[in-house]
Order: sequence, then C-alpha cells, then structure tokens
Amino acid sequence: MIKVGIVGGTGYTGVELLRLLAQHPQVQLHSITSRSEAGMAVAEMFPSLRNRVDLKFTTPENAKLTECDAVFFATPHGVAMAQAKELLAANVKILDLAADFRLQDIKVFEQWYGMPHACPDILKEAVYGLPEINREKIKQARIVGLAGCYPTSVQLGLAPLLSPQNGFSKPLIDAQRIIADCKSGTSGAGRKAEIATLLSEASDNFKAYAVKGHRHLPEITQGLKAIAGHDQVALTFVPHLTPMIRGIHSTLYVQLTPDGRSVDFQALYESFYANEPFVDVMPAGSHPETRSVRGSNGMKIAVHRPGGGDTLVILVVEDNLVKGASGQGVQCLNLMFGFPESMGLEQIALMP
Amino acid sequence: MIKVGIVGGTGYTGVELLRLLAQHPQVQLHSITSRSEAGMAVAEMFPSLRNRVDLKFTTPENAKLTECDAVFFATPHGVAMAQAKELLAANVKILDLAADFRLQDIKVFEQWYGMPHACPDILKEAVYGLPEINREKIKQARIVGLAGCYPTSVQLGLAPLLSPQNGFSKPLIDAQRIIADCKSGTSGAGRKAEIATLLSEASDNFKAYAVKGHRHLPEITQGLKAIAGHDQVALTFVPHLTPMIRGIHSTLYVQLTPDGRSVDFQALYESFYANEPFVDVMPAGSHPETRSVRGSNGMKIAVHRPGGGDTLVILVVEDNLVKGASGQGVQCLNLMFGFPESMGLEQIALMP
Amino acid sequence: MIKVGIVGGTGYTGVELLRLLAQHPQVQLHSITSRSEAGMAVAEMFPSLRNRVDLKFTTPENAKLTECDAVFFATPHGVAMAQAKELLAANVKILDLAADFRLQDIKVFEQWYGMPHACPDILKEAVYGLPEINREKIKQARIVGLAGCYPTSVQLGLAPLLSPQNGFSKPLIDAQRIIADCKSGTSGAGRKAEIATLLSEASDNFKAYAVKGHRHLPEITQGLKAIAGHDQVALTFVPHLTPMIRGIHSTLYVQLTPDGRSVDFQALYESFYANEPFVDVMPAGSHPETRSVRGSNGMKIAVHRPGGGDTLVILVVEDNLVKGASGQGVQCLNLMFGFPESMGLEQIALMP
Amino acid sequence: MIKVGIVGGTGYTGVELLRLLAQHPQVQLHSITSRSEAGMAVAEMFPSLRNRVDLKFTTPENAKLTECDAVFFATPHGVAMAQAKELLAANVKILDLAADFRLQDIKVFEQWYGMPHACPDILKEAVYGLPEINREKIKQARIVGLAGCYPTSVQLGLAPLLSPQNGFSKPLIDAQRIIADCKSGTSGAGRKAEIATLLSEASDNFKAYAVKGHRHLPEITQGLKAIAGHDQVALTFVPHLTPMIRGIHSTLYVQLTPDGRSVDFQALYESFYANEPFVDVMPAGSHPETRSVRGSNGMKIAVHRPGGGDTLVILVVEDNLVKGASGQGVQCLNLMFGFPESMGLEQIALMP
Repeated sequence: MIKVGIVGGTGYTGVELLRLLAQHPQVQLHSITSRSEAGMAVAEMFPSLRNRVDLKFTTPENAKLTECDAVFFATPHGVAMAQAKELLAANVKILDLAADFRLQDIKVFEQWYGMPHACPDILKEAVYGLPEINREKIKQARIVGLAGCYPTSVQLGLAPLLSPQNGFSKPLIDAQRIIADCKSGTSGAGRKAEIATLLSEASDNFKAYAVKGHRHLPEITQGLKAIAGHDQVALTFVPHLTPMIRGIHSTLYVQLTPDGRSVDFQALYESFYANEPFVDVMPAGSHPETRSVRGSNGMKIAVHRPGGGDTLVILVVEDNLVKGASGQGVQCLNLMFGFPESMGLEQIALMP
Repeated sequence: MIKVGIVGGTGYTGVELLRLLAQHPQVQLHSITSRSEAGMAVAEMFPSLRNRVDLKFTTPENAKLTECDAVFFATPHGVAMAQAKELLAANVKILDLAADFRLQDIKVFEQWYGMPHACPDILKEAVYGLPEINREKIKQARIVGLAGCYPTSVQLGLAPLLSPQNGFSKPLIDAQRIIADCKSGTSGAGRKAEIATLLSEASDNFKAYAVKGHRHLPEITQGLKAIAGHDQVALTFVPHLTPMIRGIHSTLYVQLTPDGRSVDFQALYESFYANEPFVDVMPAGSHPETRSVRGSNGMKIAVHRPGGGDTLVILVVEDNLVKGASGQGVQCLNLMFGFPESMGLEQIALMP
Repeated sequence: MIKVGIVGGTGYTGVELLRLLAQHPQVQLHSITSRSEAGMAVAEMFPSLRNRVDLKFTTPENAKLTECDAVFFATPHGVAMAQAKELLAANVKILDLAADFRLQDIKVFEQWYGMPHACPDILKEAVYGLPEINREKIKQARIVGLAGCYPTSVQLGLAPLLSPQNGFSKPLIDAQRIIADCKSGTSGAGRKAEIATLLSEASDNFKAYAVKGHRHLPEITQGLKAIAGHDQVALTFVPHLTPMIRGIHSTLYVQLTPDGRSVDFQALYESFYANEPFVDVMPAGSHPETRSVRGSNGMKIAVHRPGGGDTLVILVVEDNLVKGASGQGVQCLNLMFGFPESMGLEQIALMP
Repeated sequence: MIKVGIVGGTGYTGVELLRLLAQHPQVQLHSITSRSEAGMAVAEMFPSLRNRVDLKFTTPENAKLTECDAVFFATPHGVAMAQAKELLAANVKILDLAADFRLQDIKVFEQWYGMPHACPDILKEAVYGLPEINREKIKQARIVGLAGCYPTSVQLGLAPLLSPQNGFSKPLIDAQRIIADCKSGTSGAGRKAEIATLLSEASDNFKAYAVKGHRHLPEITQGLKAIAGHDQVALTFVPHLTPMIRGIHSTLYVQLTPDGRSVDFQALYESFYANEPFVDVMPAGSHPETRSVRGSNGMKIAVHRPGGGDTLVILVVEDNLVKGASGQGVQCLNLMFGFPESMGLEQIALMP
C-alpha cells in the first residue's frame, strides 16, 4: 500500500482520480487539497463518492503531502511546478495532469501558457507520461508530466506509422502533411463556470474552436517528433466541441509515400500494439465509438484506406478523463511503483 | 409601427425577444441595453441574428428609452422597478419579464426576493401578464408584470377546474391538495456562468431542486386564488431540471370532489379554451411533448383520469422562453397596442 | 465459482449483466443465447466487451443451460416461464428480469401482459426479487422474479412509511392517496428499433406516457400491499420519458395522517435503511441526482416536507439498468449462492 | 398562389416541408401522400402542426397530384423517377429530395444506389438543385434533383476556391487532395426505426461511419468538377454522427498551391458570396456553430489558415433539414415560379 495525495480535487480529473484510486487495491488516499473548499467532505461535493471516500478537502498547508509516496496534481497550469521541488526533496513522486512538465522547450511552454517556468532543472528530468511510448522511462521517473487528452489520442493513433520500431526502414507517410480533426466532449473544458459550456449553449450544437492555435499543438508535435526520431513533422490540428460529456474521437488523415502504398496497415497496427493492455486495434472496417470506452482506460483504433487511395484515415477513441487524463495517471503510477500496469484500471466501459 | 426598447438583452429571454420582435411587422427595435457589453453588436454576441438585427448594445444612459412606445425588461429582479417611474412618466409602456410586478403582496415579494420593493404605488396598477386570464386588463395596462414560466403552465393547466367561469357552481376539486410536479429545460436557469447547468453536469442527469421552496410558489398561489375567486388554495410545487434546452412539462394532480366525479373534463377543457389562439387542448388520451411547442408560443394540455378514479392528471407543455416568457410578452404587447393578438407569434414549432 | 447462463443477451439488461458478471469473482460465464445472433461473438455486437467476454451467442438448443448453476432471463415477457420447468428440474436456479414471475395474481398477469401464464405452480414458489424487502426469502429461492425498474424505486421509497417494521403502530400516511411521478431515461424502453426513442425524437424533449395505465402499476401495488401488510393501498403512477440514457427519478407524494405529523422522517428513513449496503438516505434537504448512481447499484433517497405541511415528498434515484434490473439481479444471485451481497457490485458511479 | 403536393410526408424532410410551406404566402398545400398512413390527419402524426395544416395523408392514387403546380418528393430513392414522367406530362414541376435526379452518370447512380434508373431521358434535363451554383438553370427547370445535405455544405464551402468565377486564372488549391471531415446530427439518418440512432445508442457518443464509401461522395465529386470546370478533383470524405438532432458541420482541409499562398481568402469568400441571401461569410477568426442556423435556411462559413501555412481550413454549418434539404427545396421552388428567393424562408434560427 502506498499513500497518495491529490492537489486540486474539485475538478473533473480530480474526481475521476478519486473514483479510480478509491478502488485501487494498493493505494491509500492520504489527502486531497482545495483551498476554496477546505473543510468540506469530498462526498458532499461528489455524492457519487458517499461511503466510498471519507476524506475532507484540506488546505495545502494542512495536507502534509510530504508524507505521501506520490502526489497527483489535478490543478490549473502552474501549480505543480511551484511545489515540485519540495515534494521531490521529501522523496515524493509527482504526477502532473496539467502542462507544467509536458513541454521540454521552455520557450514554447512560456509562449503557449503565458507564464515563466518555475523549475527548468526539474523539467529536464521529467518524463512525458505516455506509457505506450515511454514505459521504461516512466518506471524510473520521479516526476511525470502526463500527456494531454488530445495528444494521447493523436500520438498513439500515429505512432505505428512514424516509429522506427514499426519495422520499415523508409517513411510510410508524409509527416509534414498530417491532419488531426479531433472532437471532444465538454468535460474536456473542465468543471468551470462558463457560459460556452452550459447545456443550453453546448447541447444540440457542434462547433470547432481554437483553429488558430491550441496548446495541445506543440505538445503533439513534440511527441510525434520524439516518436519519429526526427524533426520533419508538421500537423494541422482542429479541435471541436461535441455535445456529450466524455469522449474524444480523433480522425487522422495522412498521405502515403510511394513506399507506404504496399504496406498492410491493419497488420502493422495490430502488431505494433499486440502487447498493449489498453490499446485495442479494431478489425478492418470498424468505426470505433466513444461510448465503447466510456469510463474505461481503453483506447480503440481503426485504420481505413478509402478507395485504396493514398490517404490513410485513422480513427481513435478514448475517454478523455480516463485514458486521456486520470486513468493514464494511474497507469503511470502503477509503473512507477512496480504494480501490475492494469491494477485498478479494469473497469469495463459503461454501455449504453 | 411602434418603437420598442429592451433593457438587458444578453440573456435568453432577451435574445428570444429579439428573435420575435425582429420578425414583428408592427415593431421597430429602437435600442437594447447592456452595461457590460455596451458597444458590441448584438449580432456579434448572437450570430443567429446576423443580417437581421443591426443594433448594438448601449448603456442604459445612452439608450434614450423614453423615446420608446414600450420597453421590455429582460433583467434580473429589481431592475425594472428602479426605472418604472421615469418611463411611465414619459408615457412609455412597460413589460417586465422579471418578478418586480408579479406579486401584489409586498411582504411576500420582499420575503422571497430579499429586497424592498421600490415603487409600491406603481405595483398596485401593474397587471399580471397572463392574457388568457387577464386579457381585458392587459389591454388597458400601462405596466405588465409578465407571468413566470412555471406559473404560466400551472395556472392555465388548472384554470378550467378553478374558475367560476367553468359553468359549475360547486367546487370540482379539492383546491387545497394540488400537486404540481414540474420539469424544465436548463434555459430556465438563464444564460449565467454556473457549474450546475454545465452540459457536463446537467446532461444525462435528472434532479429535483428547491423542494423546500421556490419563488414561483407564491406567484402560482396568488394566481390560482385570483382565478378561483377565493383564498382556499394550496399546492405542493416541485420543480425538476431535465436535460434539454427548452420546454416545461407540468404534471398536475388534483383530487376530485364528489361533485367533480360526474364532470366530462375533456369537454370542459375544450370549451374553456375554445377561443384561445395559443392554448390547444389535445384529444382525450394524448401525451403532449415539449418539442411540439419548441420555439412557438403554443401551449398544449391533456386531461387524464387514470382508472376513472378520483385523481385527475393534467399534462401541460410550453416553451419556457416563448409562452413562458418572451412570446407571452409579445402577446401582451399586441394587446396593449391593439394589434392582433397573434401578430409576430405564428412560428410553427421546430420538430424534430 | 458458479456457472451462469444468460438467455437473451442482446438487450440492455443483457449487456449490463455481461458487464457486471464479467467482473464478478465467483462467476464463470457459461453461455449466452440469442437465436437471431447465434454464432456472432458477443464482443462484436458490444465492442466495450472486447477482450473481456469471449463468448459467442448460441441458439437456446446449443446453450446447454442445464449445466449452469444459475440462469438469467433477459428476455421479453413469456420466455422464462416456458423454460423454467426444465431448468428447475436440472437443479438450475432462475433469475427472471422480465415479468413472468413478478405478479402472483395470474388474472392480473394475464390482463396486463396479454398471455396465459405457462406455469402457475412454479409462479407460486417464485420469490419477488427485491432484496431490501425479501432478503431471507431470496436466500432460499430457486426462482426469483426480479422487481421492475420503476417498482424498485417506488417501493423502496415508500417502504419506511408503510412497513410495520418502521416502529410505529399507527399509519403515518394515507396509503390510498399515493402519487408516484416517475421519470426514466430511454434505456428503460430497451434496445429496440422504434421511432419514439430515436435521438431525433426523444432528445431535447420531455413527455409523459401510459398515463391511462402501465404494467408496473399492478406490480407496485402488489409490492406496497405486501410491505404494508394490508390491502388498503392505491396509487396514481405517471411515468415520463426524459432525454437521458440511464436513470430513474421518482418523486413520491404522500399525505400524512394526524399520527404522521409528529414523526421525524429523516430519522425514520436513516434508521430503516441503516444496514443496507445499496440504499443511501441523503442528508436532510438533499436533491439526489440520477448521475450520482450512474453505472452503480446504489439508490439514493431524500425526504422533504415542504413548508412543514401535510404532504411528504420523497425523492428516489437509481440506475434503471443496475439497481433497477441487472445489478439487482446480481445482488439476488449473491444472496441465492451465499456470496457477500455486494460482491461484484462495488463499481462507483460514473460522474460526470 | 400555387398548388403544391408532397409525396411521402411522414419523414423528417416531409414534416419540415410542411412547416415551411404552411407559412409560405404563395403556396397552397394541395395534398400529401403516405400509403401506410392514408386517412390519418397530418396533425395527428405531427402535433406541432395542429391548427396549421388541415390535410390528411392520402394514398398516391387519391392524391390527384396532376392538379398540382409542383410536387415535392420526400421519399426513399427510386420513388420520384417512377412518377416523374406522368407528372411532367401534366405540366407539374418536380422537386426531388432523394437522389434520383442528382447523379448524371447513370452507371454511378446504379452502382451506389443499387437500382436501375427508370428514366434516363428525364434525368438528362434535370437540374441539380443548388441555387448558389445553378440559379439560372433552376429558374428554367421542370425537374430539380435537390442537392444532398453533406454535398450542399461541402460544395458551397469549396466553390470560392474552385470556381473560375473567383477571379483567379490559376488554381489556388490542390483539387486532388481535398479532405472533408463532416459531422451530422441524427435527423440526417431519417425518421426510421433503427437501433443505431436510438437516443440510448447515439447520445453521449460520437463515431465516424461509412469511411469506406458514402453515397454523397460521387455527388460531391460531380458537383465540384462542375464548379471547377474540369475533372481533376478528388476528395476524402468522412462523415460522422454527432449527438444532436439538427445540423451539419463540415471541416474542410485543402492544400494551397504556390499561387494560392498570396490570396486574401477572407476577402475572396466575402466577395464570392456578397449577394447571396442565405450564405453568410463570418468575420475572420470565427467558429460558426450549428445552432446559429438551427431551423433556418442560412449557411455560415469561416475561413482559417492556421499558422499562415499551406493548409486552409474552411468551417461550414447548415441545418441539414433546411438548407440541406427542405429549405433548399423551397428556395428552388421560389426560383422556379418567379417568387422572391427568400419568400417563406425568413425564419430566424432558434437559439438557444
């Protein structure tokens, strides 16, 4: 049993962590912080946790986080980097669900997040939390910057095409002409009082947003470059808001190179992810649905080549709060502490 | 053509007024105020009005509302009563969509709305804006306090049973044991940044609220007493939030008196509303749906007597933003200025 | 480990059974039948079960159900009673999610379900599957007719008021004037191709249905009479369709007797359900939400007495597919085989 | 006043025609056919039309369609072509909402629709019903094959880039590398009893479909070739089902040619559509929402060039039942009979 703390437990990734960790056989929930709600029982704010989570929210000062073995940050950007040094010094492992430890290029971080980075030295040792790509590094990490929700789906959707480990010596696709058309449920916008995500505004409605530029674009680009092992990667990323609570559906379009035309992509994907517990390559011709992973840590991928042409279409679904956030966090936690990777993550999707 | 101003046009009743008035053949939109959005084009905030409404939001100071023939208040409670005196003095007719001029008992107003009433004298002359009940008074009114959304559905659902004009000399129901189980879409909560009505919170979810007491309870009670012509009226009112944008469905339960047992209620309702342009009594056995009035000023009512017993069940649907608010406002405006009552209100419901 | 079969696994209660049983530590899924889908892998129809359920649908003839320890019927009404005799003879315990073994009065069954009962003798020994009321009988049962979704919520919502075990010698409420205004998500209508429950028809919409009479009315009445220990029970039951997938919210209205006026109902409910693992009496003043039990076997109840008057309002929420169907089925299975009652049912609700 | 008939009025495009035509000042609804519902009042099936449409459904035999000035076919594919000859002979103009008269290449029609074409000669004279492209031909047409819902949004979204009338002599984009990622509400699937579009299946869910090939692909390709004036056009078209009732959002990706890099696309689009009553080019940087055209015949378009790169992103929204079907039908009707093009089509979108 390890002791786990959560900083910032009142948002959606926070309550999702609570759902998962409360059922994890090797985790003892130690404390959960919220300055604004200090003193309130967690189960009062989230009645779904009544009789399952006994904690109260506490102020960061009273949370004694240094007693923990690991601490999750389910906070706005900027919080984790302010507390990382002290926790690491106390031998506490850190998992950040925000962006403080995702982008290795500090200038890029500062450009997109509008704040200076508080601990560039710690950032250097931070591992990007995408287990299917970085499993061995995560096992050794003291601090993990968990992959974002969109970036998880786009990177795992493209990795078999870009990774040198796919067994092909030549490029299969034009890595500079990638298009990622992504659709997210509204929980991706967080548990924040905002007009744009009211049911009256966002339901029975569909729209794109941030077409000019989205913070996940540099994260995806960094990740794809790392996977490809070179810098010749560029993509157009258009996120959309879809009227549902949970789920991301990424539709990825890539152009095949002449070398790529003879590849059996179905076989490639199946082989690439053959041993992954959470990535499911669907049979040829499938159309994965977001609900088929609702509430689970699974990801489902289908590969299409319409008309046998030069455009490959990859469909990827995940639950943005699980595989796209808190579930992936628990997956990394398991790796960091030597637990079986699927421990506490075996929930079957809720369907219908 | 009359000149009409709107105070507070950034909420749902405001934009709904704009939709209706922009198509009204006898109305010229004169000005629309919003302190926070002054200077912004209305069509920038509400793109559905592009090329249909040319106005910009202005501050109340610059709106020259005294030039109008009529002014709607689509504001929080308390705003209309602060400006009523000046407008009336300038010969401007007032229609208030908030509660300032609904409750004639000032103590009750102050108890439920937590503020003193600013103009009790004007309140006295204000007419309650429910045309099917108060048509003649509205025609003569200088100031109308429009009926609330729930109260409209409950009062019109019960009026044929309570009104002395129903042709029965004895009481048909026990007026002290009325139950109103009401369900509203989230637009009833307004266009306000709040967590509880986020799509992520309110969709795929159902709950009651304010069971302890809701501001519409005293309004309904006042209205039913006025309809019945006596004070022996009491009801239990439970509002619920349902995951849809527009629509109220009120399910009303009343106990028949021995005199009521022999009445043909289908015939009574059909007769009572025979000449009403906006109240549609459905055929016996019907289950009206909220969508059948979506976007229209219509109300649909069905009367059931399950098992032929002593409990009568009345089903009432309306669009809370139209017949429950802005449409009813235009209906009153038509009456106040001698236009045909249905002018500008002939939209057919959007279905599906 | 026991072997469990499922007859009719292509509907919502069937797939929900699969979700729950696949995670049950003492259950081995033995076979699942579907005549129309025989030969298809379960996980092909329900991709959420890929890598979790290996079974294929088989014809009833090939299912070898007599090898099972228990068989669930997740079928239309009439199927279970046709197969019950043979299974019982083979020492297989039966849990029917349909209505074949709910109503003890055969005439009532035949009137509401329009078919003769195939095995009145077996019906006599069948136990009504509502563990909080019938726990001891279920432990001994060979055949259980599981309570319906609405009936579960209404009966458990009213039991503390009606049961002689509530510690009051006199009636607390007028048991002949009960009103149950119930709202259900569309999964209650089943996985059937029908226009009325298309998203295009049922979303952004609210309506009552079957006000004239619903099959659950006689079931509720039978259950309440059994709980009360007398026949003087009558209720008005109005079901509504609400635009969400899962969840039932029952709003119950009862009239207090003079003896009931002095009772502390909050304390009564808390005491009555103090030892129940799945019934959660919320703190005074609460408004339970259906999503707080989404995907879980929990039920939440709140008791209100608006204005301190004579009308008591009880709010009850459950997931119609779990506590209202398949979860309750597993709960009964646990009782029938001596497993801990909560085994395999400890999922935390999915929120948001 | 002209007499208009509708063949097949029980689907969504049929009831939408009724909503629009019932309010059209120059149209008299003459008859509406449905073999299955013959004898039923239209308003019984669609209560939103009570007191607005008095017709009953009749059999085709009794409908006397040859008395009409124009007949709409809101039927499955194959019906219009069987009746076209007789109607044309009686001097009745035809508007087909299905696909019988969209594809000029009979082989392509037969390949995608799986039936021989019944009247190739009539097909030859049929005009493709997309007024912004074919206005003058529609004015002269006896028979119009209305553009499909997806094809309308994709063609109008791309026309300014491809049309020789855009004022550029050289190609601006690579017309052989177009990607159309389209999202539709469920009403696009029609009013048909099907499991896949049940609220329980399609709500809180998102998926692609028909990635292998969709009937609208050849229609879009034919249309884009006609607009471009050459055959070097190819696109990848991926439709998605989104959990809402009405609305299509098409996200279009095109690659600029070197000649295209210096073009001001915002100005190009604004100029191209400057005189169109129903196509609204939004200000630079906009993200149009489907709800901003809900229930209206408007289309909104925004043009983006993320990062100033070589990929242009065009966002297009329409109501699939109005501009994508019945509204466009009325627009064509107006053209065919010399009415003002916007007559009966001035509804403002319903928002929220």
